[in-house]
Amino acid sequence: MDSELSRFDFHALRQFTSAVFTHCGLSTTDAAQATDVLLRADLRGVDSHGIARLPVYFSDLINGTTNPTPNLRVVCETPSTATVDGDGGLGLVVGPRANELAMKKALDVGSGWVAVRGSTHYGIAGYYTLQAVEKDLIGWAMTNGTRTQTPLWGADMMLGTNPISVSFPALEQDDIIIDMSTSVVTAGRMDLAMLRNESVPAGWLVEPDGQPTSDPSALLRGGPLLPLGAERAHGGHKGYCLAAMVDIFSGVLSGANWGPFVPSFTVPKNAYTPPVGVGTGHLFGAMRVEAFRPAEEFKKSVDHWIRVMKGTKPSPGATGPLVPGEPEREEEEHRRNKGIPLLTRVVDRLREVSEQSGIPLPAPISEE
Amino acid sequence: MDSELSRFDFHALRQFTSAVFTHCGLSTTDAAQATDVLLRADLRGVDSHGIARLPVYFSDLINGTTNPTPNLRVVCETPSTATVDGDGGLGLVVGPRANELAMKKALDVGSGWVAVRGSTHYGIAGYYTLQAVEKDLIGWAMTNGTRTQTPLWGADMMLGTNPISVSFPALEQDDIIIDMSTSVVTAGRMDLAMLRNESVPAGWLVEPDGQPTSDPSALLRGGPLLPLGAERAHGGHKGYCLAAMVDIFSGVLSGANWGPFVPSFTVPKNAYTPPVGVGTGHLFGAMRVEAFRPAEEFKKSVDHWIRVMKGTKPSPGATGPLVPGEPEREEEEHRRNKGIPLLTRVVDRLREVSEQSGIPLPAPISEE
Repeated sequence: MDSELSRFDFHALRQFTSAVFTHCGLSTTDAAQATDVLLRADLRGVDSHGIARLPVYFSDLINGTTNPTPNLRVVCETPSTATVDGDGGLGLVVGPRANELAMKKALDVGSGWVAVRGSTHYGIAGYYTLQAVEKDLIGWAMTNGTRTQTPLWGADMMLGTNPISVSFPALEQDDIIIDMSTSVVTAGRMDLAMLRNESVPAGWLVEPDGQPTSDPSALLRGGPLLPLGAERAHGGHKGYCLAAMVDIFSGVLSGANWGPFVPSFTVPKNAYTPPVGVGTGHLFGAMRVEAFRPAEEFKKSVDHWIRVMKGTKPSPGATGPLVPGEPEREEEEHRRNKGIPLLTRVVDRLREVSEQSGIPLPAPISEE
Repeated sequence: MDSELSRFDFHALRQFTSAVFTHCGLSTTDAAQATDVLLRADLRGVDSHGIARLPVYFSDLINGTTNPTPNLRVVCETPSTATVDGDGGLGLVVGPRANELAMKKALDVGSGWVAVRGSTHYGIAGYYTLQAVEKDLIGWAMTNGTRTQTPLWGADMMLGTNPISVSFPALEQDDIIIDMSTSVVTAGRMDLAMLRNESVPAGWLVEPDGQPTSDPSALLRGGPLLPLGAERAHGGHKGYCLAAMVDIFSGVLSGANWGPFVPSFTVPKNAYTPPVGVGTGHLFGAMRVEAFRPAEEFKKSVDHWIRVMKGTKPSPGATGPLVPGEPEREEEEHRRNKGIPLLTRVVDRLREVSEQSGIPLPAPISEE
């Protein structure tokens, strides 16, 4: 069955992925970096953004859509900002370098903001802000993406799911890692529902004519995802505002494409043409905690904040609030030990990559 | 009836408000500044944050809770950041000064970020980012506030409605002004529903025990507002993440109070004690457009973005997407000309301020 799972050793998948990227022409350093970003998604349970996407990265590299050896250029710079052109490189390589620059600027002058154009899909936004908290920085990451989401009061795919991640370092507690799309849910949730032959709640997406639906396959017919809040009475204008914000920071500020012009990462390729900018866009930010307050003081306060929020009286049937990043952290611990579960259809597609590249796919450690 | 309206001339209300602030001991400059912030809310149709709040600012100034002559101190500073202690001053005075500092830093080094502690309620977040776009800056403003919102899976007031505003300058189109709370709706919407004796949609707030309700007066019994998304299946964890983010930036980064410890602006005063920081907190940010891309190019692109989004196929029964800030801008034009509508109960409370201060309340220009 399509929804069957096999479990793979994390390190074996790393070796495979890195070898595939090297096969595509990336340097060993870049291949390792790209693999690190991509597989962090699998570790953290964000299956839609991990190795399941390797076949798309692979074909885009092989067919020349993505540049395996980009020459990144800083096209504009001030002490606390820069704009970087990614030269059509893999987002998984361009993103980490731009993020490094943002973090360096934060260490130098208190905060750093790097807008990126000429990039491609960059993995999970949370990867970048996880780097920041290790340096006592507050991390920011945004990206625009393939059109799937409608603005409130519209009925067409005009924006990506446009995620935003912001992370804060804690002292003894786990760091706070926010990483969220600005639509109610992502397209990956529709895929999963289709795979399981399930309907979805009203308010996740609409039919192509804008009528309400609980049929996840409406997405395949052009039915757009709804913004967080879904409808006016429940704050759908706010989700749209957030998606717009991420799009303008990622695409318009950097000179990348924006809205429906963002190059499609998924199939079918249905971006508006001609392009209005260069490639896909991101924004990375970093703020040095010590630039505002002694880091130890801040991190102790974050610990206290976490304890207070987790101590909130639970709602009926719940065990109380979580802290942003908590479910992903637990998943990461589990998967590092127990392996990465992959759907049979994902394994089948990886096998095709293996055949085309000549890189052997590791055997599963268990079937479920 | 309580829901009756009178309309007042904008300039007459300005004079009244400014005279009241001066009566409370503010300098004429500070009184004018505070009035400018406060009444911008009335102009933009955010009635809950405008002159309706003057009685609270007034009593907090008269009884010594708020310092009429604060001595602002920069307690930490780098080229692109600062932390400011507002010395217990009026947020309407402390906020604009801190925002000025953020904008100055952005003009100097590309971006500027100022965290504020020791402040009080600062009016609408949008006021601050409206200042930024006039200077070809992208503006950011956040604040924490009186506890009213529950984290997802909790059933207690632990966070404020914690608004965020981000604004982008356009060229020929109107600027994009995002200004939104991170709860589904604000407490002001419950007040209005109670006044009109109406029920509210499920998903706005819950009873104090966490059970669903459509009774707006649950708020008065301690029933908390829900985060944007309302429930897990519709992204309530994302609204909670945003409220958390705003709280940590505003309260924890600056050394102000956070979460349920933020001093109550409303009655009853029910903040947790003892305090965990100094007063209420804000974060202001500014990014110079030219630090990323030529401003004219950026603003032309924003114009294009607006035209494309407004051209989206409308959803059934709608006329198509709006641009963030559009409804408030239209309201502002209308109210500048036609006057500010105030509810009878608001006028009654302003009359009390008038009697206590000896400042005459202007007569309405019309009754409705």
